[in-house]
Amino acid sequence: MTGIFITFEGADGAGKTTQLDMLTTSFQMIGQEVIRTREPGGTVIGEAIRHLLLDPSMGSMGAETEIFLYEAARAQLVREVIKPALLKGQVVLCDRFTDSTMAYQGFGRGLERAMIDPLNDLATGGMKPHRTFLLDLDPQVGLQRLQAKRGADRLEQENLLFHQRVREGFLTIAQKDNNRIKVISADGSAVAVHQAIVESLRELSPTLPFCSTC
Amino acid sequence: MTGIFITFEGADGAGKTTQLDMLTTSFQMIGQEVIRTREPGGTVIGEAIRHLLLDPSMGSMGAETEIFLYEAARAQLVREVIKPALLKGQVVLCDRFTDSTMAYQGFGRGLERAMIDPLNDLATGGMKPHRTFLLDLDPQVGLQRLQAKRGADRLEQENLLFHQRVREGFLTIAQKDNNRIKVISADGSAVAVHQAIVESLRELSPTLPFCSTC
Repeated sequence: MTGIFITFEGADGAGKTTQLDMLTTSFQMIGQEVIRTREPGGTVIGEAIRHLLLDPSMGSMGAETEIFLYEAARAQLVREVIKPALLKGQVVLCDRFTDSTMAYQGFGRGLERAMIDPLNDLATGGMKPHRTFLLDLDPQVGLQRLQAKRGADRLEQENLLFHQRVREGFLTIAQKDNNRIKVISADGSAVAVHQAIVESLRELSPTLPFCSTC
Repeated sequence: MTGIFITFEGADGAGKTTQLDMLTTSFQMIGQEVIRTREPGGTVIGEAIRHLLLDPSMGSMGAETEIFLYEAARAQLVREVIKPALLKGQVVLCDRFTDSTMAYQGFGRGLERAMIDPLNDLATGGMKPHRTFLLDLDPQVGLQRLQAKRGADRLEQENLLFHQRVREGFLTIAQKDNNRIKVISADGSAVAVHQAIVESLRELSPTLPFCSTC
């Protein structure tokens, strides 16, 4: 495979979409074809699964049901989109990947972590991103903003604990696999975060993109 | 748990539906509440997943995508239907369960068998049926009938090989777990098969149903 596979991880609201936009532009500026995709989704089957995961009429979904649905969407995305693109030498940017499953279902929902890696491996066929950017944000920061506006209720307090476990999960995963995963503070400006991402990619290979905003 | 969990396995066309009908009647004749369900399906989420698995507009689905979808439907069915019913002392009859995954995805599609048991265990929480009836049919018998009618094409020949692997899979699983799984020839009449099923259940417990046709 000659392409490059880059994933973005972190909480909702950490700025992944903005960074995906900026990095796509950076690659396009050097004439590099970019495939941008997301999890769950990115294929006809995957988007149908995403719809199931988000549909409130599905009622209460067990944590095990949820993880199998995420892995089903991932298995299809890897085989139908990511691997073929990498074989053609394209750059693939993906919004969330296996680390989200470990952080949310493992650390967040408390599913046994030892069995999450084998599930991820089955879904990906053992393929790993060349580089992962973890946009790290303290959930307390988000809650404080919310409290300043209108106060946080009990459920939001519970959500805070959940999101604290997820954040701890992401940071633990990043520490274990620090060659692949670069932790970048999402507190900085979008431009500063983008510069850090571009710098990290140029370390990976000097032919990689220039900063689109510098 | 005080209920009894009974599953039916075997090829399509082996007569599972007829036997489920007859056994349901047998239980109802002794005033026993019966929950009858199927895989994939049996819950709102599970039926939506079944729809995805059967929908031709989903395109070509990878074997890994397929197994994760089956396990997702199973995880929900166990937690939402089967376990609660067994806790209430009900009898649960299920059309297909974990053995189908091993036979079709493992033996049939060639997914690594060693990782199918852990997937099944995660979906079921380790719960196993009290008794499983494998309605065994030689796929060649089905093909011969077809050939007598109009001849079988290349694809049907391939299908025969697939269904032979699936049958071999079912028989291998049954041999390994012969306390739980009873192999019954689907060549016999529906009444003969029903009698064999009832007899086997009365061995399990003498308070179990009488034959509805005897």
